[in-house]
Amino acid sequence: MSKAQAARGMRDFLPADVRRRQYVIGVIADVYERYGFEPLETPAVENLETLLGKYGEEGNQLIFKILKRGDQASSGEADLALRYDLTVPLARVVAEHRRQLPRFFKRYQVQPVWRADRPARGRFREFYQCDVDAVGSRAMTVEAELLGAASEVLVRLGFADFTIRLNHRQVLGAALATSGVPEALHGTTLVALDKLDKIGRDGVARELRSRGVPDKAAEPVLDLFTAAGPDMVSGDVVARLRGAVAGHQAGAQGLAELEEILALVGSTPAAGRVRIDPSLARGLSYYTGSIMEVVVSDLAGSLAGGGRYDGLIGMFLGEEVPACGISLGLERILVVMGERGMFPPEAARPPADVMVAIFDAAGVTDALALAATLRRGAGGAGLRVDVYPEPDKIGKQFKHAASRGMPFVALSGEAERAAGTVAVKDMTAGTQDAVARDKAAAFILAKFGEKLGTSRG
Amino acid sequence: MSKAQAARGMRDFLPADVRRRQYVIGVIADVYERYGFEPLETPAVENLETLLGKYGEEGNQLIFKILKRGDQASSGEADLALRYDLTVPLARVVAEHRRQLPRFFKRYQVQPVWRADRPARGRFREFYQCDVDAVGSRAMTVEAELLGAASEVLVRLGFADFTIRLNHRQVLGAALATSGVPEALHGTTLVALDKLDKIGRDGVARELRSRGVPDKAAEPVLDLFTAAGPDMVSGDVVARLRGAVAGHQAGAQGLAELEEILALVGSTPAAGRVRIDPSLARGLSYYTGSIMEVVVSDLAGSLAGGGRYDGLIGMFLGEEVPACGISLGLERILVVMGERGMFPPEAARPPADVMVAIFDAAGVTDALALAATLRRGAGGAGLRVDVYPEPDKIGKQFKHAASRGMPFVALSGEAERAAGTVAVKDMTAGTQDAVARDKAAAFILAKFGEKLGTSRG
Repeated sequence: MSKAQAARGMRDFLPADVRRRQYVIGVIADVYERYGFEPLETPAVENLETLLGKYGEEGNQLIFKILKRGDQASSGEADLALRYDLTVPLARVVAEHRRQLPRFFKRYQVQPVWRADRPARGRFREFYQCDVDAVGSRAMTVEAELLGAASEVLVRLGFADFTIRLNHRQVLGAALATSGVPEALHGTTLVALDKLDKIGRDGVARELRSRGVPDKAAEPVLDLFTAAGPDMVSGDVVARLRGAVAGHQAGAQGLAELEEILALVGSTPAAGRVRIDPSLARGLSYYTGSIMEVVVSDLAGSLAGGGRYDGLIGMFLGEEVPACGISLGLERILVVMGERGMFPPEAARPPADVMVAIFDAAGVTDALALAATLRRGAGGAGLRVDVYPEPDKIGKQFKHAASRGMPFVALSGEAERAAGTVAVKDMTAGTQDAVARDKAAAFILAKFGEKLGTSRG
Repeated sequence: MSKAQAARGMRDFLPADVRRRQYVIGVIADVYERYGFEPLETPAVENLETLLGKYGEEGNQLIFKILKRGDQASSGEADLALRYDLTVPLARVVAEHRRQLPRFFKRYQVQPVWRADRPARGRFREFYQCDVDAVGSRAMTVEAELLGAASEVLVRLGFADFTIRLNHRQVLGAALATSGVPEALHGTTLVALDKLDKIGRDGVARELRSRGVPDKAAEPVLDLFTAAGPDMVSGDVVARLRGAVAGHQAGAQGLAELEEILALVGSTPAAGRVRIDPSLARGLSYYTGSIMEVVVSDLAGSLAGGGRYDGLIGMFLGEEVPACGISLGLERILVVMGERGMFPPEAARPPADVMVAIFDAAGVTDALALAATLRRGAGGAGLRVDVYPEPDKIGKQFKHAASRGMPFVALSGEAERAAGTVAVKDMTAGTQDAVARDKAAAFILAKFGEKLGTSRG
């Protein structure tokens, strides 16, 4: 007997889970479509070399690798790997299909990714990402539209209290350079700084030392990162940063871009939510410009994160193509929505609107025909109809319908068949009516109209 | 520079592809919901032992295996594997979550599977399956409802000309037994017989010989498989099979079940489409009862296939739970629909309903605000709105909108901003109107009403 167990860190989604996930993904897709983003899907499996070297050393370790097949199977070597995020595949797609894609390509993508992380509460080895990216423009309109779209998603889902942290890799680079962190250590320094929330100032200081950053350079950087508390308003922060990047051209440009984004988001649903935060670093190595993160006050970690990566597509294409994107953390959003009771009634529904019971063996054909009639429905609207699969005690069939939350049971016994009627039981009200067979669908649909919003998604 | 190439046998789906796929999957999900099936999703990755030994020797070879990680990475061993079909994961789920699931569990599942097959025209290493299964009942109502649901999907998609081939593993078993094929060779014999379409009678005869089936036993089996041509009506076939299974209890029971299915489907959308076909074998080893396949006359291979597998869940649970299901071949359905021009207009749509052009640098904020207004729409209906990302020559922006098939372009230049209007260009008609800013969404929506069914999905 095989052990019946999902792989470690992987989850089955039973129907109620799937419906909640579909509800959230539906809202996300609807909003992103409204912003002119188009759907893209890429394979779960990529060539190993496509992924290696894109996520930094820690990322490389977490890639699931697939064994070579056929004659080479015994080598124990891998040539393929499971998708680790949706950004690198997008960069690969843009390079591979460049001629078929428009100059400005805006796509959203909702697919699972896999990471060989140690599973923990809320951390899985298979999880969905919902990414939205705009390829082809360096303009800050892109950042503003992305932040607007992501904000509209969160508002539509019922999040009222989120804040967007905004920073810029060039500003960070300038701050590191003027603090005396050698250029070659900028990447590793940012990875360490990204852990400030988790391991604190002393922890980051230790990690920076072990990564070879001199204390003398680390101190002013840590000051900058810890000074700007969450209460500091963006104007003060900009003034402070202006000092930190003074005389550094790329830094000054980055700061100007941050100010432009702040001005532009005023016309979008992100208005009033964006805060420049000099301590935002983001762990990924491919960011080159603006970086952003969406947080809610009572939750460690973020609901979304993203940034500009003008160099990544060039790693595949050989020619630089600017790009910027935001990834929504679907799993975290689902957890918070569950904990806060944010799912609307339509995110749950019974398996069917009506269950057709089977009176006796002679009535099986008739029950199937009744189900077909109810599914066709009335006036263009059809019902979702389940059929109890076999003749059984009627009490048992009603019990099954009740336990499954079926709003109605329809039954056509010998008497009903002779009279051309159907017995329709309203499982909520407990009432039962005899209805002409060809009127049964309309009768049930009308009853649904009366209890609008209760059970039919 | 990394090579920009999808892995061999794997495909990217660009927006137009995704929209066609979503259309078909939407129809499938809608119909299956109407039959009371609920959505299920399982992880792409399963424990290797969950999959091994379920698909026969040829199947085992085609499973993609995932390398162990961490300290064990250097061993070159695999402990995980990519999902090979949706049936074995369902069996695993039913065993693992038995107590949370209803006694009769009906689920549909639309997810990709992976097979390390040699890629060829129309054969991919990642492809979607659309499975619908009913767990918990031995009644033939299950088969009838499954065939009805799958038929309704195909009819709704526009397939008018399909036929359902129906057979039974117990009938096949009886035929093999009475022909003298030893019980232990039944499985391998069916795998060989399943190739009749591809390698012909002589090819199968050779393969049976090499698999150890005596010629004397193979001959009558091959006669039975080749005698019943597609023109034979089910009544004649039943009579012929009654002879073949005479005195074989399980075979007689199988034949009775086939007759019951034939009678029951008369009340479903599969009415008139089912044909008992003694030469249908199906390659998979886990089938125990009815087996079925949906074919269209001008297409080699099938659009769907399935059957009853009352033993598979028991391999995980230790206790037998009956089950039956049908898998639609999504990729093949898509290919045929494309070749036959079966996609309706709503399976294609432009990236947005309106593109907002950017008149000049001073107008960027205003353009974003205009986009927000249009997205909010009028009377509850919003527009899908793209914003050209940067100030550019107006001619170039219109050209971009035209090349992307945008139905409308909205523009707010200096004059329009002063007058509180928007210039709306109808890209199909070539007309341009000045519209009050707060009426622009309603104006465009009304124009969509006029050309109903052209561009808004």
